[in-house]
Amino acid sequence: MTTASPSKTASIFSRVRFVMVHPSHPGNVGAAARAIKTMGFHDLHLVAPRYPDICQLAEAQALASGATDVLTDAGIAGTLEEALAPVTLAFALTARARDLGPPPCDIREAATASQAHLRDHEHGKIAIVLGTERSGLTNEDIARCQRICHIPANPEYSSLNVAQALQLAAWELRYALAVGASLPLLPSTDKASRPAGSEPAPNEKVQALLAHWEQALVALQFLDPKHPKKLMPRMQHLFSRSELSQDEVDMLRGVCTAMIKAANH
Amino acid sequence: MTTASPSKTASIFSRVRFVMVHPSHPGNVGAAARAIKTMGFHDLHLVAPRYPDICQLAEAQALASGATDVLTDAGIAGTLEEALAPVTLAFALTARARDLGPPPCDIREAATASQAHLRDHEHGKIAIVLGTERSGLTNEDIARCQRICHIPANPEYSSLNVAQALQLAAWELRYALAVGASLPLLPSTDKASRPAGSEPAPNEKVQALLAHWEQALVALQFLDPKHPKKLMPRMQHLFSRSELSQDEVDMLRGVCTAMIKAANH
Repeated sequence: MTTASPSKTASIFSRVRFVMVHPSHPGNVGAAARAIKTMGFHDLHLVAPRYPDICQLAEAQALASGATDVLTDAGIAGTLEEALAPVTLAFALTARARDLGPPPCDIREAATASQAHLRDHEHGKIAIVLGTERSGLTNEDIARCQRICHIPANPEYSSLNVAQALQLAAWELRYALAVGASLPLLPSTDKASRPAGSEPAPNEKVQALLAHWEQALVALQFLDPKHPKKLMPRMQHLFSRSELSQDEVDMLRGVCTAMIKAANH
Repeated sequence: MTTASPSKTASIFSRVRFVMVHPSHPGNVGAAARAIKTMGFHDLHLVAPRYPDICQLAEAQALASGATDVLTDAGIAGTLEEALAPVTLAFALTARARDLGPPPCDIREAATASQAHLRDHEHGKIAIVLGTERSGLTNEDIARCQRICHIPANPEYSSLNVAQALQLAAWELRYALAVGASLPLLPSTDKASRPAGSEPAPNEKVQALLAHWEQALVALQFLDPKHPKKLMPRMQHLFSRSELSQDEVDMLRGVCTAMIKAANH
């Protein structure tokens, strides 16, 4: 691999966030910190860890080895929504196949797609989201992500623990970002001339749209709040995977406003 | 990717051998067995282990978890020469740069080269050779190998233990062998069990949805037919790239109907 300049390298690696949902073992959190640091990453976020101070517990510190700085800087969020707020492209890393939308891609394809996304969107930010070994990710968690990816290990014996899965994912990203960063840019649009509105919307804006959309569907009496069934999860899934731009979010919010206005007359 | 027969899959993976030189920790040997099995490999060889029965020691068995079969079948050799006897292309996996012969390649390049070698030479056999964490490989060990390869981790913090290094190497080989031989990486979904509604909607259904959506937006007075601007082209773009399923099209058409109904009151 050829090497890009240190500042460019550091910058792109800071745009990848690793998110653990409901971690309960301090050892796993420590091992996770170590796994991502070995691959040049630093941004670890924990969603509703079992212990609020899980990063400071002895086992976490011990297993982090020389990566306690990652633990010190780790983000603690109450919800996955919070952890994904600034993220524009989130991958749910999950071993189990789901019946939601597009089939999963493998981790290398995810890494390649991440590199292209970061190259094309200067405010883009990637997230890799993992559940715990015991419970994995819920369908709700997955619906908040734009894509599903998995590590195609031996189907007859695929037991990767969380730290191993994270290390492989971090390795794939390292390779994709390092190789990609040293290649000349593809002949494409001049970034300086790209309007800000065409940039991908961060997750928090997409969530705000979904809340507005839900309001509108209730106003139209399309969605019955007493019998919501699976309507909003399906809408969540649809909107998340569409990778909406800022402009598209604004446009759809305009539609929501018009729907509510019509319903109120 | 086309599907190869199970025997073809098993056959190519059996042509890769993982060699640990002078392992002293039973735990590492157990973890190594597990690491290679998760990636579909089985051939582990130990050169002059500290204990001749290292594979049967309690810590090895415990850390191997469901991979004790790899330990049972592991080869024990007195010298590296013996372990490499049937091998045609051996890679010394080493973190430290050496002044010997060709510069190291990275592990992915080694995996790619391995796949090509196995494809081109029906009696070819690959080996990945690792030393221990304490001593690494001697120059003599390296001289017995055809190539040197390394895992380019974070230069500021590259602490991979032997099991982690083996897992990454085994993963890279798995990917190269599977993709190179057109073997399925992903367990193929049983298409018969996927509900029809989750299948992608053909374009004509998406177009019918867009026509209905346009009607609804006009009814809400969100879209002014006299000044349509670029609204519908933007909606077209959004809906098209979302790869809507049949169910999603039906759901959105329900929303259109509700929008028109509310507007007409």
